[in-house]
Amino acid sequence: MSDVLMVGSVALDSVETPYGKVQRALGGAATYAGVAAGFFTGVQVVGVVGDDFDPAHLAFLASRGVDTAGIERVPGGKTFHWAGVYSADMNSRETLATELNVFETFAPKLPQAYRRTPFLFLANIHPALQLDVLNQVEAPRFIGLDTMNLWISIARDALLEVVARVQLLLLNDEEARMLSGESNLVAAGRDLLTRGPRVVIIKKGEHGALMFTEHGLFAAPGFPLEVVKDPTGCGDCFAGALMGQLAAGEDIDEESLRRAVIYGSVVASYNAEDFSLDRLRTLTPDDIDHRFRAFVALTKFA
Amino acid sequence: MSDVLMVGSVALDSVETPYGKVQRALGGAATYAGVAAGFFTGVQVVGVVGDDFDPAHLAFLASRGVDTAGIERVPGGKTFHWAGVYSADMNSRETLATELNVFETFAPKLPQAYRRTPFLFLANIHPALQLDVLNQVEAPRFIGLDTMNLWISIARDALLEVVARVQLLLLNDEEARMLSGESNLVAAGRDLLTRGPRVVIIKKGEHGALMFTEHGLFAAPGFPLEVVKDPTGCGDCFAGALMGQLAAGEDIDEESLRRAVIYGSVVASYNAEDFSLDRLRTLTPDDIDHRFRAFVALTKFA
Repeated sequence: MSDVLMVGSVALDSVETPYGKVQRALGGAATYAGVAAGFFTGVQVVGVVGDDFDPAHLAFLASRGVDTAGIERVPGGKTFHWAGVYSADMNSRETLATELNVFETFAPKLPQAYRRTPFLFLANIHPALQLDVLNQVEAPRFIGLDTMNLWISIARDALLEVVARVQLLLLNDEEARMLSGESNLVAAGRDLLTRGPRVVIIKKGEHGALMFTEHGLFAAPGFPLEVVKDPTGCGDCFAGALMGQLAAGEDIDEESLRRAVIYGSVVASYNAEDFSLDRLRTLTPDDIDHRFRAFVALTKFA
Repeated sequence: MSDVLMVGSVALDSVETPYGKVQRALGGAATYAGVAAGFFTGVQVVGVVGDDFDPAHLAFLASRGVDTAGIERVPGGKTFHWAGVYSADMNSRETLATELNVFETFAPKLPQAYRRTPFLFLANIHPALQLDVLNQVEAPRFIGLDTMNLWISIARDALLEVVARVQLLLLNDEEARMLSGESNLVAAGRDLLTRGPRVVIIKKGEHGALMFTEHGLFAAPGFPLEVVKDPTGCGDCFAGALMGQLAAGEDIDEESLRRAVIYGSVVASYNAEDFSLDRLRTLTPDDIDHRFRAFVALTKFA
């Protein structure tokens, strides 16, 4: 059982969906990923917040197995704030505000105690910052990387430098097509596998995920949910639970990677059932086991 | 091992995709479904063509195990012709021409020998004609039904009458939402299950299929293809292979239904690899077994 270090955004989100809305609720990629990983193993988070960040949020993270010593608090600063509204069918969303605030000058500084953590997840931040983090860690065993369309457009070379130094690349279908230049998703995954990582996972939202390794492809369905209240953070929960599950185990082989993809899908599917991280506040290990078995029942055939 | 009777369109299609084009090539829902089913069991097709329909097409169908005695030939008539062009990413298509010709007055008349066939597939035609067919058959064991958005819009009541009399309803995600009035796909499937059929399968194109039964949900992925030359007829191949596989077996239970969904996905995925029915011309039972095993490898986890 190893710890996982997460580096990325800690945020306050204002989100509206057909099921309701929240104002300045807990959010951020490292937050979602950290809490999701905390169901499986110990977690450290490196991020930055302003002094408007409710200490109760830090207490919640700590209660979920997350070491928050690496979350810098900037006096007089304001926390990164994102606001968005989802379409009626939840398949698209419009960003209403992106106030970077203290996140604008975020320069991740890893506490000495974190530099030898064996598992590292680079959540979606500028690739130059991700490179900075890579230069502060001491030979981690397994590095996972997330990114976004913006960096593929404006910082492609730096991003490809990061990609070449990680074991796992996670991205969505649109980003996979952009980064590879291949419109076919299988061709895109195979191309990205030649750029460094030994595992490429293409997230397809409600349609599940496709994993590419030297052993071939693995297709995981999205869990069919009758109620999706707020999909925000599902991709980060997927990545966090996946990294946490891998860190909790011994070997990283095809079997453990596939199992980790399913655990990622399990936690991501629960996360969509309520706003912000609210569903994760009450989620139990029994719930996770229950839905893992539901995934088995959902997919088995002979 | 039972035979399957298919009733629906036999057509000539002109199709253009980024990979090329064909003019007046063999097509039609009953044709695709019939040839797909012919890999598993004996097939009878009821349809109509004009005297422009090349007898070589009938010879090909016969070579694939399809009894063509129920395909009426109208002297002086022209065969149903559909022309369409696919978008660059193959995810949408534009219809350039729909010339119904002899199909406009198609009134399915079942040969006496077909009326006791145990398995019946009602391919996509006007629900009033599907009802006509139901009134000509003698207590078939298992009836599958396909439809389209047009009939949901303009012949909803007749369609629901057919739905109430079949065991299996097949439709795509958009149609499932339209017919049920539910925007969520799980809610849509559950609603349709209350309207008569004991099996509802929602086709999601490249994203696979979701099957709803009293035992719960089954999610089958789409087979990840690197080259898709022409997706025309894939939904019909899926339905045909599924019906053929069920008819070839003994029991119709959860296990055999799930296996049939995978066989449907196998034949549909091969069909997309070439224009018209061309890939099915060379497809072998070994190819089918090979891709069935690839589906196992694609989806298994522990």
